[in-house]
Amino acid sequence: MLAPVTTPLPAFTAVLFGLSGCLVDFGAQAGTAVRLSDEHTLATPGALKVLEALKQQGVPCAWLDELAGNLTEKLAMPLSHLISATPATKAPWPAPDACWQALMTLGVSQLDGCVLVSGEPRLLQSGLNAGLWTVGLASCGSLCGLSPSQWQALTNAEREYRRGQATLQLYALGVHSVVDHLGDLQSCLADIALRRTKGEKP
Amino acid sequence: MLAPVTTPLPAFTAVLFGLSGCLVDFGAQAGTAVRLSDEHTLATPGALKVLEALKQQGVPCAWLDELAGNLTEKLAMPLSHLISATPATKAPWPAPDACWQALMTLGVSQLDGCVLVSGEPRLLQSGLNAGLWTVGLASCGSLCGLSPSQWQALTNAEREYRRGQATLQLYALGVHSVVDHLGDLQSCLADIALRRTKGEKP
Repeated sequence: MLAPVTTPLPAFTAVLFGLSGCLVDFGAQAGTAVRLSDEHTLATPGALKVLEALKQQGVPCAWLDELAGNLTEKLAMPLSHLISATPATKAPWPAPDACWQALMTLGVSQLDGCVLVSGEPRLLQSGLNAGLWTVGLASCGSLCGLSPSQWQALTNAEREYRRGQATLQLYALGVHSVVDHLGDLQSCLADIALRRTKGEKP
Repeated sequence: MLAPVTTPLPAFTAVLFGLSGCLVDFGAQAGTAVRLSDEHTLATPGALKVLEALKQQGVPCAWLDELAGNLTEKLAMPLSHLISATPATKAPWPAPDACWQALMTLGVSQLDGCVLVSGEPRLLQSGLNAGLWTVGLASCGSLCGLSPSQWQALTNAEREYRRGQATLQLYALGVHSVVDHLGDLQSCLADIALRRTKGEKP
């Protein structure tokens, strides 16, 4: 029997991220908060690490958000050395425009291999409409909607229940994969890369 | 045995067309001509009929071209009641930008079911990069590159040879289907609709 040939998995063309409820602002609460707190501008678990890894691999990345510009500017501050914003579009999510505009801003040469990661169903639907691979975040984002301290204050059973409900909602939307938060993204991206080698399309 | 249930094929979301060498200007010669002749502004075989059919079905359509604006304005004149132009983009074909921009201008809600029809390999590559279904035109367009009168002056064998060569080049590019000219597009679109119902993705 021949040993399997290990070919490297294909690189991703680009990865788009949500900002609030994805890269920062674990519970997506900044949009409705009276004023920003430290918890809003805190990078979510795994966010910096995954952005650094993608930067090292030379994968173009950008974030998208529909919150007001002065708010996203503050939220994006801790990440500004790793990822940049994309311009606003006229058509709001779930229209595909924001995702296509982001890819054009990044100067992406093809849709193939482009991924969107978000905890916001409307943005994920925009990514699906634009033809991207989509990764939903269950605990992090608007579906659970709890700040890090509120999330930690729950019992394990409560967390599991909410995570399960959010996961079901995201898969019902049609996303290609669901992870808890960005700390689990790397293995999820490796899985999508494998699915791509098998000919699967988003 | 049960009779097969005949469900209507899914409608297309939008159809994009090339202008020169697709809807008009059979041999894609207008771009290099000293002055425009009647053959350049003549709608190609089947063009008006297919645009009328798509309009009747309510399928949004637009044309794309990279020729100068004053030239495309004259070329598009015979079709202006059926189809409109799309704005120019900074990134030239084969970047996907022109196709995405065209879909955004049409206000298309999703990539799924969007088709590009063209006789120009660079535009078809742009469509492939943008994730669209692509239909290449073999006789009509820049690959054969002959005006209607030049094309008719060939022997049957000469036409068959050139058509065959162009068809091979277009399939080598990766297009999803090849037809001779727009007169054959309706049956080709029906075939793509069938492929979509079977779960095939572009």
